Amino acid sequence: MSFDDKMRDAVQAYFDLFNAGQGAAIAALFADDAQVIDPVGTAPKSGKAEILAFYEMATGSRTTLEKTGPTRIVDHSAAFAFKAHIPGISADDKAVDVDLPSGSMVIDIIDVFDFNEDGKIKQMRAYWGPSNISQ
Amino acid sequence: MSFDDKMRDAVQAYFDLFNAGQGAAIAALFADDAQVIDPVGTAPKSGKAEILAFYEMATGSRTTLEKTGPTRIVDHSAAFAFKAHIPGISADDKAVDVDLPSGSMVIDIIDVFDFNEDGKIKQMRAYWGPSNISQ
Repeated sequence: MSFDDKMRDAVQAYFDLFNAGQGAAIAALFADDAQVIDPVGTAPKSGKAEILAFYEMATGSRTTLEKTGPTRIVDHSAAFAFKAHIPGISADDKAVDVDLPSGSMVIDIIDVFDFNEDGKIKQMRAYWGPSNISQ
Repeated sequence: MSFDDKMRDAVQAYFDLFNAGQGAAIAALFADDAQVIDPVGTAPKSGKAEILAFYEMATGSRTTLEKTGPTRIVDHSAAFAFKAHIPGISADDKAVDVDLPSGSMVIDIIDVFDFNEDGKIKQMRAYWGPSNISQ
């Protein structure tokens, strides 16, 4: 399998596992020393334990991800656009360090994954802000 | 005008100016020490002169850009998905340092712009590879 195909499969697995609520399996897509920056501008979640906690909380909210358009694949990176459908979350359950409205919402997001030589995600950056939230 | 609005307007101007073939006006959206990395993994175009040459060549090919989905705006960054409609280019006219097929094509791209405090683009990264080209 080409490295491009490996990256594309990892992105597809990310969506499938997220929508199946499999936080631990998502965390296994990441390198041991990986960083998750979601959204860009907030403090990174660093390393397996923090990344696992993040995805367990994110998938625990029954959020689903809807891909919009093809995965862009180049060099050691993948970029893709999607909508996060969030059914409503409590302040305690919130995985991200930004203010969110209460009630259900849809957030338009673009993620960029940078991969290491082993095909594991070494950094994830999520681009979305207040103007990308619809209710 | 908020900084978010300034970034969103810059992205809209980028599309409008590109589709009007205004290479010099596009270059004016960038900081003096800016970098353009298109696609990611190739050598950056650095500084006003190289960026101007890049956009004069890119717009000279009569390529048009079609935005697909909202601009994601956060912190000092904007990310957005689009299609580049390329009517066919000669080897001499090519703005990017990768092999492209001959004839007309459509490329699915995601760009990320990082802005400086003055609202000028300081780095542009374009995510697209061979698998994102359709003919």
